[in-house]
Amino acid sequence: MSAIPDDFLEQTAQLSEEVIRPFRGSRKIYVEGSRPDIRVPMREIIQSETEASFESEENPPIPVYDTSGPFSDPDIEVDLLKGMPDVRTGWIDERQDTEVLDGLSSEYGLMRQADASLDHLRFEHIRLPRRAKTGKNVTQMHYARQGIITPEMEYVAIRENCKLAEMRADSRYEKLLRQHAGQSFGANIQEEVTPEFVRSEIAAGRAIIPANINHPEVEPMIIGRNFRVKINTNIGNSAVTSSIAEEVEKMAWSSRWGGDTLMDLSTGENIHETREWILRNAPTPIGTVPIYQALEKVNGKAEDLTWEIMRDTLIEQAEQGVDYFTIHAGLLLRHVPMTANRVTGIVSRGGSILAKWCLAHHQENFLYTHFEDICEIMKAYDVAFSLGDGLRPGCLADANDEAQFGELETLGELTKIAWAHDVQVIIEGPGHVPMQMIKENMDKELEDCHEAPFYTLGPLVTDIGSGYDHLTSAIGAAQIGWYGTAMLCYVTPKEHLGLPNKEDVREGIIAYKIAAQAADLAKGFPGIQMRDNAMSKARFEFRWEDQFNLAFDPEKSRSFHDETMPAEAHKVAHFCSMCGPNFCSMKISQEVRVYANNLGISEEEALQKGMQEKAAQFKEQGAEIYKQA
Amino acid sequence: MSAIPDDFLEQTAQLSEEVIRPFRGSRKIYVEGSRPDIRVPMREIIQSETEASFESEENPPIPVYDTSGPFSDPDIEVDLLKGMPDVRTGWIDERQDTEVLDGLSSEYGLMRQADASLDHLRFEHIRLPRRAKTGKNVTQMHYARQGIITPEMEYVAIRENCKLAEMRADSRYEKLLRQHAGQSFGANIQEEVTPEFVRSEIAAGRAIIPANINHPEVEPMIIGRNFRVKINTNIGNSAVTSSIAEEVEKMAWSSRWGGDTLMDLSTGENIHETREWILRNAPTPIGTVPIYQALEKVNGKAEDLTWEIMRDTLIEQAEQGVDYFTIHAGLLLRHVPMTANRVTGIVSRGGSILAKWCLAHHQENFLYTHFEDICEIMKAYDVAFSLGDGLRPGCLADANDEAQFGELETLGELTKIAWAHDVQVIIEGPGHVPMQMIKENMDKELEDCHEAPFYTLGPLVTDIGSGYDHLTSAIGAAQIGWYGTAMLCYVTPKEHLGLPNKEDVREGIIAYKIAAQAADLAKGFPGIQMRDNAMSKARFEFRWEDQFNLAFDPEKSRSFHDETMPAEAHKVAHFCSMCGPNFCSMKISQEVRVYANNLGISEEEALQKGMQEKAAQFKEQGAEIYKQA
Repeated sequence: MSAIPDDFLEQTAQLSEEVIRPFRGSRKIYVEGSRPDIRVPMREIIQSETEASFESEENPPIPVYDTSGPFSDPDIEVDLLKGMPDVRTGWIDERQDTEVLDGLSSEYGLMRQADASLDHLRFEHIRLPRRAKTGKNVTQMHYARQGIITPEMEYVAIRENCKLAEMRADSRYEKLLRQHAGQSFGANIQEEVTPEFVRSEIAAGRAIIPANINHPEVEPMIIGRNFRVKINTNIGNSAVTSSIAEEVEKMAWSSRWGGDTLMDLSTGENIHETREWILRNAPTPIGTVPIYQALEKVNGKAEDLTWEIMRDTLIEQAEQGVDYFTIHAGLLLRHVPMTANRVTGIVSRGGSILAKWCLAHHQENFLYTHFEDICEIMKAYDVAFSLGDGLRPGCLADANDEAQFGELETLGELTKIAWAHDVQVIIEGPGHVPMQMIKENMDKELEDCHEAPFYTLGPLVTDIGSGYDHLTSAIGAAQIGWYGTAMLCYVTPKEHLGLPNKEDVREGIIAYKIAAQAADLAKGFPGIQMRDNAMSKARFEFRWEDQFNLAFDPEKSRSFHDETMPAEAHKVAHFCSMCGPNFCSMKISQEVRVYANNLGISEEEALQKGMQEKAAQFKEQGAEIYKQA
Repeated sequence: MSAIPDDFLEQTAQLSEEVIRPFRGSRKIYVEGSRPDIRVPMREIIQSETEASFESEENPPIPVYDTSGPFSDPDIEVDLLKGMPDVRTGWIDERQDTEVLDGLSSEYGLMRQADASLDHLRFEHIRLPRRAKTGKNVTQMHYARQGIITPEMEYVAIRENCKLAEMRADSRYEKLLRQHAGQSFGANIQEEVTPEFVRSEIAAGRAIIPANINHPEVEPMIIGRNFRVKINTNIGNSAVTSSIAEEVEKMAWSSRWGGDTLMDLSTGENIHETREWILRNAPTPIGTVPIYQALEKVNGKAEDLTWEIMRDTLIEQAEQGVDYFTIHAGLLLRHVPMTANRVTGIVSRGGSILAKWCLAHHQENFLYTHFEDICEIMKAYDVAFSLGDGLRPGCLADANDEAQFGELETLGELTKIAWAHDVQVIIEGPGHVPMQMIKENMDKELEDCHEAPFYTLGPLVTDIGSGYDHLTSAIGAAQIGWYGTAMLCYVTPKEHLGLPNKEDVREGIIAYKIAAQAADLAKGFPGIQMRDNAMSKARFEFRWEDQFNLAFDPEKSRSFHDETMPAEAHKVAHFCSMCGPNFCSMKISQEVRVYANNLGISEEEALQKGMQEKAAQFKEQGAEIYKQA
């Protein structure tokens, strides 16, 4: 596979123009916190003015949550060879509970480092690793439980609010901020997110900030059901296809379109080096499934896995800066026979590796028996657990069965153990679940896992949507997000069929941005309807450019519009391609509104003044309005 | 616009190969009813055998509901110039309550007929129209209320069951027929649909069979919440684009992919002639919004509309064979001012036409005041009402407001009037509604409209998904379908941006097939999970061809697979492109299953026999299994 070309570094250093071009009609802004080194990035979508025919009006900029990091900042020259700007080292340093080591602690890491044949594909500016001082615990949960509000916590509070307080004080936003009451299913949605609320949620285990001390480039974000619903994307090379340069490009692409976190699921060659490139350039938290790499180290033979190999892999990745690990410690020997009569058995790769190991050794899962050892590693770097659902259902027929729910109960036990170490935890879930069985998953997770954040794949709500499973799963994702899932793992249109290309990644992300937005709207997250309202107003006023810019995917919106009406003049047209220029319901509505406003008409009035007189008036005036428009 | 080419008829007569090619791996079948002229079309997806490595097994054919009509039947030579085969004329004749007229009853129809300049684009074999004999009522509801089970009713019962009884009696289907209990929200889902149940549902107004006596080509289908959820697609030329040949092609394309009914929303030139071509070639019921054409007749000036023009239009279209009319009779003068403070006013085209008319004349909506006159026309041809939601919300901000719900209440009044004439009714609804407010729509519709079937557009669950609104709305459609909506009106990715091309139509249809399937699964419609189960089994057994064929879109599934693994050999590969050949969770699962089956292992047993011994055994055997696969 992937022969490394001679000009590898040069190639890698170049992101495509489409990955880094700023969003049209937007500007990158930074909101400063209580200290100058807390600078929270956002994007503001600039709107044009409402035209005279709709009563001239200024339309204020719409600030939106921004995951795109330095890639979309025209003032930052992105140089992949050097990596992203440092966000957190100052904060980590001043806590004085970590130390920079003399070298890597992992044997495998050292071996790769010493291999000169890898020099040509190695990231050039690898930092020495940082670790907690002996006896120290450096997790955000540990700080939170001591009552400390870290800069990371303040950062995510500012980020979640997305300028809400400023907008509430600004009359231009008054109408745009109106929204319907939500139905939160017991979530505790705040009118405004305070740093103290962030701290208390993390202390309670209801939210996490995935932020390894070796990933100072990360722009902190929070995962919890009382915050905005987040989405995760997956990339990774495999034995079949894809190179380092492609993976870095996909990572940046994911950030651009709205991926909040990203999992590197590589299983092919040069996993270690690929991960370094990704981490040094990733503004979002990065997750991995360490057992994938451990398996590569034993040449794919699950039965040859040992705790020592796994342990070394965890340390190797923790020192590179991975922010969360999927650990399939809840799949127990006793669960395995529960899968024998399933229609699709075990579909989680990690789950099947461990099931095979358990059967081969007829011993309990070594991740379960070594769980406290793993906690010790996690808290020395602040790596969060993503407790893996090795027995998630791979089809509707297997949904909510004893295997799935048995493992979920074990994940609840493990959550308590992790929390005893102040290690942050999220819980992985769903897969394929029909709609009427989705809520049971959420409710059971909250109960069994003590309200630890739920992180679900989809779920797909039917098995026969191949080629459209981003959509099949977005249906389930929107629902489970509404019910309380904190982060949604995206699915691309290629699911079940092949590896996603860049276009598939974009389609998958936008599908999940839509699902997450739908969930936040349904829960009634404050201010969340503003962008919808701004879009609707722009639609009504035929502000086409603003419509494109307010969409999750401005580029596709614009290109779709151009397919039917390519001329520039059509972007200011008072009609759209659906009904054509001679007739348009929006236009008539506007006439109705002007009429109602001008005459101050109401039902009672109309009846009083007599219908015939009004009719004559309107015919005259209406004709005139019609001519003007 | 749209200049008609000289070879127009020849062009129109040619459907693209992609529209008529049979589905690969499928065969068209017909299930005969109680008489030989009841022949209900279905498609059977042929499955390959399970391979020896998974214990050889025959996999039975999967019968699926088929909307594609003669287009997908290799034994029928489709000739658009002659139209589709006649399904119903014998049934209509034998009821002896209709008469074939000497000529058209509509003035406009006669005028078009007499216009020689239109000869070159006219369908050649126009039949004389049929109408109820004086004093007769020819609606399916009328027959149902007299206790008559028509051939149409028996036909739809067979169609809904889709061979369920035969499969229940056949042991090969036993496992495939297993499914989860549904949650039906008060729907009355039958274990098997009987013709008598169909009759009783139609008599009660809870379901309709849209089947105009002048559309004998139609393959009857039923719309009601105790049956399969249906989907409607829209086509139509507009002043901006599209010709007759394109519209006929889109109609056939819609049938192919799963459109249950189709609305012709043409607003451009030659509406009358376009409709004739569509009806004579449509195996699915066709709906229209007659006021669109009426408006064209008054050159787009809503205030010039009159009852006489509308009445002539209704008769013109009823005699061509339109199966249901959207009639915006529920939008009353008093509702119009309720829209003045909306963010997007009136977004229904029909709604805005009538609002404008009401204001111009300051009189009550003439469709409301003439509603009984309309009923007289409907029952003479069996055209069903689709009572239009002229005030549906065009954005989240306007959802569930007094305008929308005020109109819905009026639609309930009108339903009672229509039913007093034994005229069939469905009720149009949603638009843009956030998830937490969807169920209120369904519940209110059932209550206000006396359980008449609900027919909703989406709803879209956020306003900012432009370019992906098939998906944004499929999220809402799946939910409202689950809650009880009988038919979902599709949305394409071009919604809000432009006119859909063929690819957009396909994407929109498949999105809605997925939403409808998800809803049927959630409601627990009998047998509905079988195709999902068959797909899951095929996935587990790496039967790639069967996976493609069982999907809603086999062609896209295949092409996606081929992008990553193009070789034919990969279609029988025991791995997929996601994890590559060396490691695959499905493969390991299979090993777990073989292991568990061979040894009859259970948790208790394992503990009894001692772990170490087992472990040694498995290592030996496992290695061997691994080599074979």
